[in-house]
Amino acid sequence: MSSYGERLAAVTAARGRLCVGIDPHRSVIEAWGYEFGLAGLEAVARGMVDALGDVVAVFKPQSAFFEAHGSAGVAVLERTIAAAKAAGALVIVDAKRGDIGSTMAAYADAYLSDSSPLAGDALTVSPYLGFGSLQPALDLAHATGRGLYVLARTSNPEGGDVQSAVRADGVTVAQGMVDAAIAANEASGQGAVGLVIGATHSDAGCDLDHFNGSILAPGIGAQGGTIQSLAGIFGPATDRVLPSASREVLLSGPSVAGLREAVARLQLV
Amino acid sequence: MSSYGERLAAVTAARGRLCVGIDPHRSVIEAWGYEFGLAGLEAVARGMVDALGDVVAVFKPQSAFFEAHGSAGVAVLERTIAAAKAAGALVIVDAKRGDIGSTMAAYADAYLSDSSPLAGDALTVSPYLGFGSLQPALDLAHATGRGLYVLARTSNPEGGDVQSAVRADGVTVAQGMVDAAIAANEASGQGAVGLVIGATHSDAGCDLDHFNGSILAPGIGAQGGTIQSLAGIFGPATDRVLPSASREVLLSGPSVAGLREAVARLQLV
Repeated sequence: MSSYGERLAAVTAARGRLCVGIDPHRSVIEAWGYEFGLAGLEAVARGMVDALGDVVAVFKPQSAFFEAHGSAGVAVLERTIAAAKAAGALVIVDAKRGDIGSTMAAYADAYLSDSSPLAGDALTVSPYLGFGSLQPALDLAHATGRGLYVLARTSNPEGGDVQSAVRADGVTVAQGMVDAAIAANEASGQGAVGLVIGATHSDAGCDLDHFNGSILAPGIGAQGGTIQSLAGIFGPATDRVLPSASREVLLSGPSVAGLREAVARLQLV
Repeated sequence: MSSYGERLAAVTAARGRLCVGIDPHRSVIEAWGYEFGLAGLEAVARGMVDALGDVVAVFKPQSAFFEAHGSAGVAVLERTIAAAKAAGALVIVDAKRGDIGSTMAAYADAYLSDSSPLAGDALTVSPYLGFGSLQPALDLAHATGRGLYVLARTSNPEGGDVQSAVRADGVTVAQGMVDAAIAANEASGQGAVGLVIGATHSDAGCDLDHFNGSILAPGIGAQGGTIQSLAGIFGPATDRVLPSASREVLLSGPSVAGLREAVARLQLV
């Protein structure tokens, strides 16, 4: 079994580091010429994979836009994940799950086990209940060769209320997530634990010099981040960044040529 | 349209304040005599509602245990929500969703809109991205007469790493959530914003004296909290607490008499 870190290194070496978000918002579905509903949801999500599955390293479907259509929408997410994997891309399911104990273990079963139709290659997780609460997901990710992306410093301004708060040991909440991720990756040797850090700040808001996993950086394009600004934000860790663009790519569709041109424009190399 | 606060007051006046979690964990499904799988999931979830729907004020289905069965499990959650509503109970969907902008709005559409099969009467939300990130959910909750329960101080020990951190204005992250919820309820007059505060600490970890919504307090029973300890933890806010029990009730089934006896034992009155 290959680790998530190994598979990510291989696919990004071949295809570049751009992560493409699949965010089938109502406005996107309508811009593609469909009515808002299940058929339009599936047309956009599958259209993205059909157009880009052979050139994009990582897709990041956003679970919320599927859940908004109920369980039938979640079934579309399952089919989208399967199609992206079949095309040779990796899938980060952006669901920001987080809970404790047996409930966290159930989320891990849903998104990180070999038998689940909702399992991609990695999952975004939310640590309001503490990094330690994520342990069942870490354990299963390590066991199945999958990855986690832990929210650390997000791209929205109001995130600072939590993420810049200072713990009793003097480090910020965000830095505490970085430090815990470093320790988890050192212990496993797998590089399974990544971080979510927005690409819209003037700096990353935490010290990433020793970070040893990958960094998912949403906010390229519609949220105001640019590929060119990454080095200024992430410094020496820039090589670990997966810049993620969603709306800017989605709104270049449904034309296959338009979608592929948008990806080519946004690739780092 | 009645507000969430009004409906909660009416049903708890009639049925008592106990909230019963529907957590169909593998061990529960097997203890009820079923194999782990979709049929067992539905038998437990619907069995809880059939046995208790006329005596329990609030059910709290835990989304993770349904998602672990993929989209077909999410369809079971939809049917469980519908059955609980039909029985006259309120439903807090425990999904701890949290994101920003249009993604948070999509989660709100999924769990707080009149037309969604996943919408209960209230939703638990996770504020790692800041209380302000929840605004789209607050707006829709107010518009549809639904509620939110914002994670503040949770029942797990490792939660302190985030929740006890101190913001630039000198308040803890947890207290910041309390203060923001108070302000939101004062602005709306609806009491739609509740808090999740664990019932397993020796004190609540934040000042709740001015809090004006309801407090969801998981941890009664299996996690070590007791009904008798609530007043010591919550002080004057105890009257606002919805003590929530899951495993202790679930493992009293599948006998209807056993389930109803467990609820009677745990009711505050």
